[in-house]
Amino acid sequence: MLAEIITIGDEILIGQVVDTNSVWMAKQLNLIGVTVKQITSVSDHEAHIIEALQQAEKRADLILITGGLGPTKDDITKLTLARYFNMGFRRDEQALKKVQEIFEKYKRPLLDINIKQADVPDGCEVIVNQNGTAPCMWFEQNNKIFVSMPGVPFEMMYLMDEEILPRIKSRFKLPFIVHKTILTANIGESFLAKEIELIEDHLPEHIKLAYLPKLGQVRLRLSAKGENEAALKAEVNSYARQIIEKVERFVVVDDDIPLEKAILNLMLKKGLTLSTAESCTGGYIAHLITQHPGCSAVYWGGAVAYAYELKESILGVKESTLTTYGAVSEQTVVEMAEGALKHFKTDYAIAVSGIAGPDGGTADKPVGTVWIAVSHKNKTVAKVFSFSNKRIQNIERSAASAFTMLLNLLKEA
Amino acid sequence: MLAEIITIGDEILIGQVVDTNSVWMAKQLNLIGVTVKQITSVSDHEAHIIEALQQAEKRADLILITGGLGPTKDDITKLTLARYFNMGFRRDEQALKKVQEIFEKYKRPLLDINIKQADVPDGCEVIVNQNGTAPCMWFEQNNKIFVSMPGVPFEMMYLMDEEILPRIKSRFKLPFIVHKTILTANIGESFLAKEIELIEDHLPEHIKLAYLPKLGQVRLRLSAKGENEAALKAEVNSYARQIIEKVERFVVVDDDIPLEKAILNLMLKKGLTLSTAESCTGGYIAHLITQHPGCSAVYWGGAVAYAYELKESILGVKESTLTTYGAVSEQTVVEMAEGALKHFKTDYAIAVSGIAGPDGGTADKPVGTVWIAVSHKNKTVAKVFSFSNKRIQNIERSAASAFTMLLNLLKEA
Repeated sequence: MLAEIITIGDEILIGQVVDTNSVWMAKQLNLIGVTVKQITSVSDHEAHIIEALQQAEKRADLILITGGLGPTKDDITKLTLARYFNMGFRRDEQALKKVQEIFEKYKRPLLDINIKQADVPDGCEVIVNQNGTAPCMWFEQNNKIFVSMPGVPFEMMYLMDEEILPRIKSRFKLPFIVHKTILTANIGESFLAKEIELIEDHLPEHIKLAYLPKLGQVRLRLSAKGENEAALKAEVNSYARQIIEKVERFVVVDDDIPLEKAILNLMLKKGLTLSTAESCTGGYIAHLITQHPGCSAVYWGGAVAYAYELKESILGVKESTLTTYGAVSEQTVVEMAEGALKHFKTDYAIAVSGIAGPDGGTADKPVGTVWIAVSHKNKTVAKVFSFSNKRIQNIERSAASAFTMLLNLLKEA
Repeated sequence: MLAEIITIGDEILIGQVVDTNSVWMAKQLNLIGVTVKQITSVSDHEAHIIEALQQAEKRADLILITGGLGPTKDDITKLTLARYFNMGFRRDEQALKKVQEIFEKYKRPLLDINIKQADVPDGCEVIVNQNGTAPCMWFEQNNKIFVSMPGVPFEMMYLMDEEILPRIKSRFKLPFIVHKTILTANIGESFLAKEIELIEDHLPEHIKLAYLPKLGQVRLRLSAKGENEAALKAEVNSYARQIIEKVERFVVVDDDIPLEKAILNLMLKKGLTLSTAESCTGGYIAHLITQHPGCSAVYWGGAVAYAYELKESILGVKESTLTTYGAVSEQTVVEMAEGALKHFKTDYAIAVSGIAGPDGGTADKPVGTVWIAVSHKNKTVAKVFSFSNKRIQNIERSAASAFTMLLNLLKEA
């Protein structure tokens, strides 16, 4: 089964918001064996929305639409769908009840424009949105299914999880799609390709290999599609094993998880604990770690020590070190890492201090200069990096490098 | 001038990576007066890429393509473009020199597949990629421009900033697009719409108003397009002023910046300092703050106190408070906030403690229960929230609520 996703809203096309809905929906569809053929973002213009619907209908069987369902005048998805399917409007009692409930709960007066949210094209089936006032609408035409959902991420996610995906699964016999991802570090894409050339050349037609490079890591993804899930899995796993054998020293983990999650799993298995001492990454490393459920078994916490005062008071960095060598120096970052070990009483610590930019650079230490240290009781390793002049990139690359250094230190031990 | 963005790569369609390139490109294009008509993500299949190119060419004058330019076999963009434009291949000397330079710099042997990265369709102009081995390619056909760029974000960004955008600007007379954004908090979308209904009804054709709700905030965006930048700005500003007057008590800032950046600006103006004490948000609040250049003038840092031990040792939360009331309680979060004020010596502090989930909930305190406190020397305000059962959402909503509470406390003072 082929699906397409259409997101409606000028805010994506003028670059004001990142479309995180599509990627989430694509992932969920993929997991149940639905292939996403295309993702399209269009503006709040009727003619353009209609063109996108027509083209998606030609290519796919299931068209999921998000956005443009708010109560305000800039939202025209519902009107456009009614025109596309040549339908009139009816007031849906269930949807109205939900709107009333929500307004009662928050003790707010019900406005006309809120009541109108319960008006829907008369040929659609309404799926009640438990978390908001815009109803979800399910249309069928020429054996194609169209589902219109609100663009608010948690409303859309709830509807997908509880309603849309279960309906698709129960109604269609879907093929199995099996992915297997191998995360590598410390090796470039082309060298990796060279190493596994022979394996790649012998892959059968129904198995594809992709290289996904990102921040010094390369993920290898094997994808297979077929009718027999067990056979597919066995086949993909056998190729994965061949690849892992060939490039074993670069393999972090044979799972589709980010580097920090692989590290958490490894540390959990070994019963080790971790803390962080961040300056220029400003909590980003802690955030990457604490995104993951269960991280508290390994990660105890840490400091975001932006000001000199906090580097001294929380981490015990010596004032003389800061004044002699500066905050962005080997000496400071080593004291930060060792201070974290000592004060937070963990087995391992990560410390980062650098100039994220755009200001604060000097001739000696230009923007993008970042010192990173990783430490355990017997050893501290510190390295300096020269990243770019872009703040967010410097933060992301610092975090990725810190995790790679920690992984290498863990592997040594 | 109309543009479209096409991103090529299965990884987006299977939901493995979020397409952050498109939003960034859309924003830059918009700033120079180019309207983005559509963003399309397609898979690494020749026929599908060609269909997307054909359709984009019908609608737009400029088509920007990212992805699929790696050295490995799954990357087929270059071959597909050669076929689309009916071109053969030539080896580009400048591109080859760049590839050689990069491999020399990293002291790595040059492989055949790396040399092949310098082979390009013979009718395109090569723009050297200073940051990577895949060259950028510029094609023209029937008065339409096609630019193919690597999908690695910082390579694409550099090419856009240094090469593509300057060329577009110098070659075309572009209209001005003026946006004005007003960030509001503490009011829902439909109430806001009701309040400013009369203003909205009298907007001229060339000015659009959009409502962008997110995490308890609503951004209002006025967009105007025309030939005279000064006149457009004056006109948009005049409508913005009318709106602000009408809903003044809900307005955070009349600028397209996130809530935390508005708070940083306000605190900077008042000479105030801030620290954070995070448990369940795990550094996310610190990260949001430290994304912004210049934040160090206000933000001193803070603690990510995941473990009980760190809540006690860094923040001075009493052991008896933790054992009597639990980590997720009013008493603990108040001690965290007041501890941050005291130990980090800042004027204001934010503290968060909750159950982000998916595990760790109890009957009394289900997953999604989050206590937030904001504090300055004369006052601490604490509130409890019941969010969802989704970890990432709980983290994001906690951060947004914490910033709103801080803003309200700052306004009181």
